[in-house]
Amino acid sequence: MALIVQKYGGSSVADAEKIRNVARRIVRTKEAGNQVVVVVSAMGDTTDDLIKLAQQVTSQPTQRELDVLLSTGEIVSSALLVMALQSMGHQAISLNGAQAGIQTDSAYNRARILKVEARRLLAELEKGNIVIVAGFQGITKDMDITTLGRGGSDTTAVALAASTKAARCERYTDTEGIFTADPRVVPEAQRLDEISYDEMLELATYGSKVIHPRAVELGELYDVPILVASSFTDNPGTLIHREVAMEVRNKVRSIAHDLDVAKITIVGVPDRPGIAASIFVALAEAGISVDTIVQNASTKDITDLTFTVARSQLKSAMAVAEPIAKSIGARECVGDDKLGKVSVVGTGMQNAPGFAARMFKTLSDKGINIELITTSEIRITCIVAENKVKDAVRALHSAFELDKKQPSK
Amino acid sequence: MALIVQKYGGSSVADAEKIRNVARRIVRTKEAGNQVVVVVSAMGDTTDDLIKLAQQVTSQPTQRELDVLLSTGEIVSSALLVMALQSMGHQAISLNGAQAGIQTDSAYNRARILKVEARRLLAELEKGNIVIVAGFQGITKDMDITTLGRGGSDTTAVALAASTKAARCERYTDTEGIFTADPRVVPEAQRLDEISYDEMLELATYGSKVIHPRAVELGELYDVPILVASSFTDNPGTLIHREVAMEVRNKVRSIAHDLDVAKITIVGVPDRPGIAASIFVALAEAGISVDTIVQNASTKDITDLTFTVARSQLKSAMAVAEPIAKSIGARECVGDDKLGKVSVVGTGMQNAPGFAARMFKTLSDKGINIELITTSEIRITCIVAENKVKDAVRALHSAFELDKKQPSK
Repeated sequence: MALIVQKYGGSSVADAEKIRNVARRIVRTKEAGNQVVVVVSAMGDTTDDLIKLAQQVTSQPTQRELDVLLSTGEIVSSALLVMALQSMGHQAISLNGAQAGIQTDSAYNRARILKVEARRLLAELEKGNIVIVAGFQGITKDMDITTLGRGGSDTTAVALAASTKAARCERYTDTEGIFTADPRVVPEAQRLDEISYDEMLELATYGSKVIHPRAVELGELYDVPILVASSFTDNPGTLIHREVAMEVRNKVRSIAHDLDVAKITIVGVPDRPGIAASIFVALAEAGISVDTIVQNASTKDITDLTFTVARSQLKSAMAVAEPIAKSIGARECVGDDKLGKVSVVGTGMQNAPGFAARMFKTLSDKGINIELITTSEIRITCIVAENKVKDAVRALHSAFELDKKQPSK
Repeated sequence: MALIVQKYGGSSVADAEKIRNVARRIVRTKEAGNQVVVVVSAMGDTTDDLIKLAQQVTSQPTQRELDVLLSTGEIVSSALLVMALQSMGHQAISLNGAQAGIQTDSAYNRARILKVEARRLLAELEKGNIVIVAGFQGITKDMDITTLGRGGSDTTAVALAASTKAARCERYTDTEGIFTADPRVVPEAQRLDEISYDEMLELATYGSKVIHPRAVELGELYDVPILVASSFTDNPGTLIHREVAMEVRNKVRSIAHDLDVAKITIVGVPDRPGIAASIFVALAEAGISVDTIVQNASTKDITDLTFTVARSQLKSAMAVAEPIAKSIGARECVGDDKLGKVSVVGTGMQNAPGFAARMFKTLSDKGINIELITTSEIRITCIVAENKVKDAVRALHSAFELDKKQPSK
């Protein structure tokens, strides 16, 4: 008997009918002879609705109370899902973050899981229960309620799978797995049967919304295989795991894109130690999450420093960066929020030349100007004008021959 | 420095503006030099909405999960109220039932409070916080979430007042206190400055919706004075307490009515021991709450047994009673759901003759037929046709001279 942890996203439990549908899928897993733990997100737009409610009360809700408020969304869907399972004749029980033993630090709104005390959860499984856990939340040692921030429910699921030594974590949502590109942009994109943690981490970080990078990282750390599949179909999905078949490795695997990019360039920065630190410490203190950072080669002790942020944070990032730019004697501070990112990802790119050249040539042939380039061992990212991103994805998808059926194990 | 426990009902926190209004009232109490604990209900129709959601998933939601679901309503309003207080510059913190130490038995949907472990709550008060507690909920020794059933938030408030030795429990809602009759029925009804626990218990049990009898009972047991007042005005309200001024006692104090009454009469019951038990045990097992029970004087070993239930339960009560009536050889079983109850209440009725006579004569003068009479030491209740109830209330209000300004202490 294997222990399977499943996670269903908000769109999969958006209404009563969808909740019953999810319950039927859970029952199938249970009846196949498995023990099942399920992590659920809040129904549909519940979290956004709760945030709106808070904003009607005050423009600046405090973090502790926002967590108390938001945690209710997942509790509601966990109880409803148990009711659906019970009405189908199955034993089930809901556990909130505290009851499931999700112990976190006390960084409200973005708490980190310190430990999972799974005793109660395991006892409920022993009793024959399907255990439904409210995702996205935990509890501090002082019994205060926290939420885990972005990717919270994915992280809950992988953490539970790791701490219960589950055979697998299955993450169900409204997409059928990981594709060679976003199928909404490239209709001929192919589903991948499997992908490595490292590749998935790059894709998730550079625009794929299918699973949060935080959950992938945790999966890699504890070696939890993660299946990403649709809750609306029976297609097999994509398995994220360590051992990806050798013969599929020497390739670009997928193309990620991200339309939510703004760029700030501080022009003419004196190239002294400590300058970068002064800027990025200030941004971090203002709660601004900085993405890519590029410092152009220094000439005559003067350099240009460029970084990207989410578009919604451009204004506040500029407000932090401008006075610092001035105080350190930089020439100017320029913001641009009409940008996007396109990235090619594949472990096959390691030790294999020519990928970058082919990427740049493809974009150039399409008349797409590259604003910024960053790379990792297994990824090349170009920042281009927002309105060129989709053209870039399509051109690269074709250039790297991703529209052919992907080889599988 | 006094400790005040306040309770605000669902209509008082129905939207963001009303929540800010409640916050302003709490601030006034705090700024008058008090420590303040506040118990809140779920916003407006939240609880009903959650029940509807459950019923969309299954027609028979289980009790444990229904409690998990319903408990979120009060958690939401507690967090929002804290946000409102904080935005006004005051220190505040929300506690759910578990955090507030409301320990209950495990009778889901209608749990009883066993004990309040108020350590955390008192610690938060010591830190200078206004403490907002999610009403209506508690936790079992196994850390399962329970709700307290009808009157739950009132009961939470009185229990917290008792266990923290608060000076007073203030219950705010959309009515201005306890009146000599329902002001919607009798426009000239007068607000009472004070009323005894016993009188309030009779009024609440016999139709007044202003405060739940369970909370009044608990208040009496622990001698917690309870102020009932409006959250929308600054009128003084009504104080429910032990020592009501001597000179106002020798009177009818208020008239309660209840339109939700159905009656079942089992005609021609053989007058043997155990017959009544067989019927009422079966009704209790079917979850039917029986109200008044009257057995008419026995003649020739045959009696008529009459009892009342809420109108919504008539059908299921008949389904239980009819086969039993048949099996014990009763003649027939008759149901009537077009009834109402009118009650006059006042400790002054003890040891003072003539009240019943005046009540019956008043109804008779108005041509109102009395179907059933029951009394306690301080109450006389007549069951009459539903469409005569309001006439009866008005006639009695006038006959007992309740439309004159009520004497106060």
